[in-house]
Amino acid sequence: MIIIGEKINGSIPSMGKAIAERNEKRIRSMAKKQAAAGADYLDCCASVNENEAETMRWMIGLIEESCDTPICIDSPNPHVLAEVIADCKVPGVVNSVSGEGDKIETIFPVIANTPWKVVALLCDDTGIPKSAADRIRVLDRIMADADRYGIKHDRILIDPLVEMLCTSEDGIAMLLEVIGYIKEHYPQVHIVCAVSNISFNLPYRKIINEAFTVLAMNAGMDAAVMDPLNRDLRGIIYATEALRGNDFYCMDYIGAFREGIFGPVEEETK
Amino acid sequence: MIIIGEKINGSIPSMGKAIAERNEKRIRSMAKKQAAAGADYLDCCASVNENEAETMRWMIGLIEESCDTPICIDSPNPHVLAEVIADCKVPGVVNSVSGEGDKIETIFPVIANTPWKVVALLCDDTGIPKSAADRIRVLDRIMADADRYGIKHDRILIDPLVEMLCTSEDGIAMLLEVIGYIKEHYPQVHIVCAVSNISFNLPYRKIINEAFTVLAMNAGMDAAVMDPLNRDLRGIIYATEALRGNDFYCMDYIGAFREGIFGPVEEETK
Repeated sequence: MIIIGEKINGSIPSMGKAIAERNEKRIRSMAKKQAAAGADYLDCCASVNENEAETMRWMIGLIEESCDTPICIDSPNPHVLAEVIADCKVPGVVNSVSGEGDKIETIFPVIANTPWKVVALLCDDTGIPKSAADRIRVLDRIMADADRYGIKHDRILIDPLVEMLCTSEDGIAMLLEVIGYIKEHYPQVHIVCAVSNISFNLPYRKIINEAFTVLAMNAGMDAAVMDPLNRDLRGIIYATEALRGNDFYCMDYIGAFREGIFGPVEEETK
Repeated sequence: MIIIGEKINGSIPSMGKAIAERNEKRIRSMAKKQAAAGADYLDCCASVNENEAETMRWMIGLIEESCDTPICIDSPNPHVLAEVIADCKVPGVVNSVSGEGDKIETIFPVIANTPWKVVALLCDDTGIPKSAADRIRVLDRIMADADRYGIKHDRILIDPLVEMLCTSEDGIAMLLEVIGYIKEHYPQVHIVCAVSNISFNLPYRKIINEAFTVLAMNAGMDAAVMDPLNRDLRGIIYATEALRGNDFYCMDYIGAFREGIFGPVEEETK
């Protein structure tokens, strides 16, 4: 599983405040914590109305000072993303493109001859498609564009778009159908989900997030935008890998427990 | 999901002690707690070397005094089971038969013309078969016997036999193959697992049990021998039903949370 640490995001109120106050210590500390917990990438989203590129540049600098974990630059504005790519010392992930507007034509040429990865959301100018068939149409177009720019499939993380369960009439059947299609037609592509979206407006969200993660991994999800400090969710991921036969004699599961990545909280104080 | 409460079992050391000391209060209290938590059946296993039928009769009396939840009589000795069926006021579950010895010929005639349900384990005189094909052979024979005695398929709970994950090389792939076969060939049959068997000898067992439950339910498991007081596992079951599209607008999930079946422990003290 590729874990993209989600905590350095200005849309989280406490982090938005830290960014507004240029609180370097808070951002450094959150970068270090997520890196220590084993995140593969650290999301970096300013979520500001003005001076977004400048703010992101400042955040990127702080993250890079604090750890060696590559950054997942995150903005709804593709021009900001295209601009700050050059500020990152090591290649990371661009988050994100989609079928919307000029996102692909802005980002794909910039990353075409680099090792950068890219998250692609299955929405377009009409919004988030309601049916699997319409999401698949967006997918096929994005993949054709990727091929045109020579972006290898294993550099692409498709986000099939997780919507809240509480307003769904068929659970996650449609999402699993989309994931199944991706796995079948583009086996090299990664599938990434923003796991906690599933539980919006429901009580005791942790348990919905956990059960979702198992089912999505079982269908083919191999990357998640999540809190790497969420010990039980990390445990669920290791457990699911073991149950799916991807962890010989549970060595990874046992190793991660011994390292204190999950398990009772007392373990943290070891 | 059919939940068989597992707590009144003499093989659990504290319960074994309570049974040896004829501690009525402890057995009554455990019956009430599991019934209040919504168990569909209460397992009743004496796990004694002598006077097993007499001990079970005493336990059955205490459980029936404490709640209205039907009993799942549990013994490795089919003759003890056949004997104590008559002591239960309401029909429950016989736990268990298998392809072993005279179990089927002892139990099936006794329950043939009753509403009793029966758990059937997929093992025989050779032990627990190592391959899916061999477990399926046991299954087909048990189902042929059930048909011969006129026992309807929806009265049968097949236990495909959960073994510990830590010694498996392919995770639960073989078990899921067996479950898939059962669902396809005997769609009316229930599939029951002793969930916690999966996590023997592993650390932080709860997380393995939870991920297993999601995957097994996804494959077709619709009954579990489990601790109905395990709040997170109960939550995982409600969450999985919702994710699988079996809970319209998450009404059951939200209702169970409000009733305090799962959720933060503070809820228990409401």
